[in-house]
Amino acid sequence: MQPESPADAPLNPGIVFDMVQAHQRSAALNAAIQLDVFRAVGEGPGDVASIARHCEASERGIRILCDFLVVNGVLAKKDGRYVHTPSSAAFLDPASPACMASVAQFLSAPELIQADAHLADIVREGRTNLPGQGTVEPENPVWVMFAEKMAPMMGPMAAPLGLVVLEGNDGPMRVLDIAAGHGLFGIEIAKQNPNARVTGLDWAPVLRVALDNARKAGVHDRYDMLPGSAFDVDFGGPYDAVLLTNFLHHFDNATCVNLLKKVRSALKPGGRAATLEFVPNEDRVSPPMPAAFAMTMLTTTAQGDAYTLSELTAMHKDAGYSATKAHPIPMSPHTIVMGYA
Amino acid sequence: MQPESPADAPLNPGIVFDMVQAHQRSAALNAAIQLDVFRAVGEGPGDVASIARHCEASERGIRILCDFLVVNGVLAKKDGRYVHTPSSAAFLDPASPACMASVAQFLSAPELIQADAHLADIVREGRTNLPGQGTVEPENPVWVMFAEKMAPMMGPMAAPLGLVVLEGNDGPMRVLDIAAGHGLFGIEIAKQNPNARVTGLDWAPVLRVALDNARKAGVHDRYDMLPGSAFDVDFGGPYDAVLLTNFLHHFDNATCVNLLKKVRSALKPGGRAATLEFVPNEDRVSPPMPAAFAMTMLTTTAQGDAYTLSELTAMHKDAGYSATKAHPIPMSPHTIVMGYA
Repeated sequence: MQPESPADAPLNPGIVFDMVQAHQRSAALNAAIQLDVFRAVGEGPGDVASIARHCEASERGIRILCDFLVVNGVLAKKDGRYVHTPSSAAFLDPASPACMASVAQFLSAPELIQADAHLADIVREGRTNLPGQGTVEPENPVWVMFAEKMAPMMGPMAAPLGLVVLEGNDGPMRVLDIAAGHGLFGIEIAKQNPNARVTGLDWAPVLRVALDNARKAGVHDRYDMLPGSAFDVDFGGPYDAVLLTNFLHHFDNATCVNLLKKVRSALKPGGRAATLEFVPNEDRVSPPMPAAFAMTMLTTTAQGDAYTLSELTAMHKDAGYSATKAHPIPMSPHTIVMGYA
Repeated sequence: MQPESPADAPLNPGIVFDMVQAHQRSAALNAAIQLDVFRAVGEGPGDVASIARHCEASERGIRILCDFLVVNGVLAKKDGRYVHTPSSAAFLDPASPACMASVAQFLSAPELIQADAHLADIVREGRTNLPGQGTVEPENPVWVMFAEKMAPMMGPMAAPLGLVVLEGNDGPMRVLDIAAGHGLFGIEIAKQNPNARVTGLDWAPVLRVALDNARKAGVHDRYDMLPGSAFDVDFGGPYDAVLLTNFLHHFDNATCVNLLKKVRSALKPGGRAATLEFVPNEDRVSPPMPAAFAMTMLTTTAQGDAYTLSELTAMHKDAGYSATKAHPIPMSPHTIVMGYA
């Protein structure tokens, strides 16, 4: 994000030019990932010729692309050679276990970026230009891709979420993971507490991804599957905890309240609903990442939003929860918001 | 541009997420311009409802769009109302004489942004994916649009360029403005020196824009037109000064040297060639705007580049100039590079 430019900032035409040209930054990152530039920089000597050879690309193209990546802080340049920054080594080199290249692929999927060319119309209409309910249409294949590609971004949030949900509880418990996706959040609970049994709820093709991940984590014998829509299926239960990660933001207030009621009725007395959300401050324009996330909800949903803590607290109250507590996750744009039944 | 992330910067996955999503920033700015949001903010009370009414748009869309503009520093928010920053008032409100909305329109033209979806191929090939020589194909209509739309960005550079070229000379002189475009640079010379006679060279449809601007500035009786290609037409002369603004970057080194030779042979003894260029430092990755400009030359030309001062100096030397002098323009990404015959 740009450094802030409040009402008393000095005149700067560069901020306009930079914003007009920002689309080049996304294109450059995607091209570099497609061409395997970040692996070439990690493996090789880092000169233009050897990167171009690795990527089977022209030297002019590679030089200009790599310089552009340096300008944008996702490579560095030392004595004419390109080297990783700590962040590009960790998050963009496919040799790193934390590589987020698949996240970039998901977020650059044609159905997500086509909105750019139609944004004025979307603002006029006040809703996604995708058919029906946008990305939350039943069985939308985008969620299989989400489950497969977004794990590197969501993975680091799993451990803190598990700690907050378990609060040291290592006894037998049942946890429902609504819109499980990649399944990493429920799986983390099962890893942290060997006596926890987890039920993943999502569309059947998505749950296959979650089950694969449960198997890799060695917890699949305590991982049950509940295929379908969170609005339609019987949750079963009762559960000690229900996870609602990256889910409420797709819907309007009334739909969220109704879902939270349904969740509460599936909770044991004293149980808790754990939402993971982009939660902007009450001003709705800070911090940058959670605040900017509302734009994605405008372009991909009919009525979703990035809800503030006061809005989420009101939803909890309207749904009959007794208390709400927020836990911002350090070094992440996400907040865990707990509702206590 | 992002704050720099050199090789010793701390780990930050946000820098990757921000770059992946940067395309939203360009889309949001373009949508806001299309919807007339910046005029609405300047004229009205700045609440969501009144902006939505002015823009004939939904309140949900306007709220999310305006919050996104605040996050990106091109609006501010005070007590729930949107207000201009000094920069958005000056450069984005159509009520301001310095409004750069047309610059955004030019830089977001389909032929310029279509490269985004094909950037990996462009890097492989090392040249624009546009037909022929890209934007420098003869009679390319993009230059009429450039002449019409880019004046607000180039206008502020005209006065400093005029001062450097004239160096106080108020006597009779002849000036050739190659690739005149909007004509503002040659026109400025004619304004600063009432005894200067200026010849604008560009494609005929482009020169009509320049002549209109000369008429508005009241200097059209000293403004001559030379329609055609800088590589083909006889320059005439001899001239005291030749302007080569935003031109050399479209071509390879040999083409630049040949053109500079042709320019020199049209100069009087002691005359000067004045180029206006994006000149990155010798590291090619700073300052951000001139360095990033090379990407536009990759996507729109076959062999153009953002040349460093040492490269431009070598071109001057190879073309027989006796000296080179650089004048960075304050508060701008441009540098005036003078070659002395």
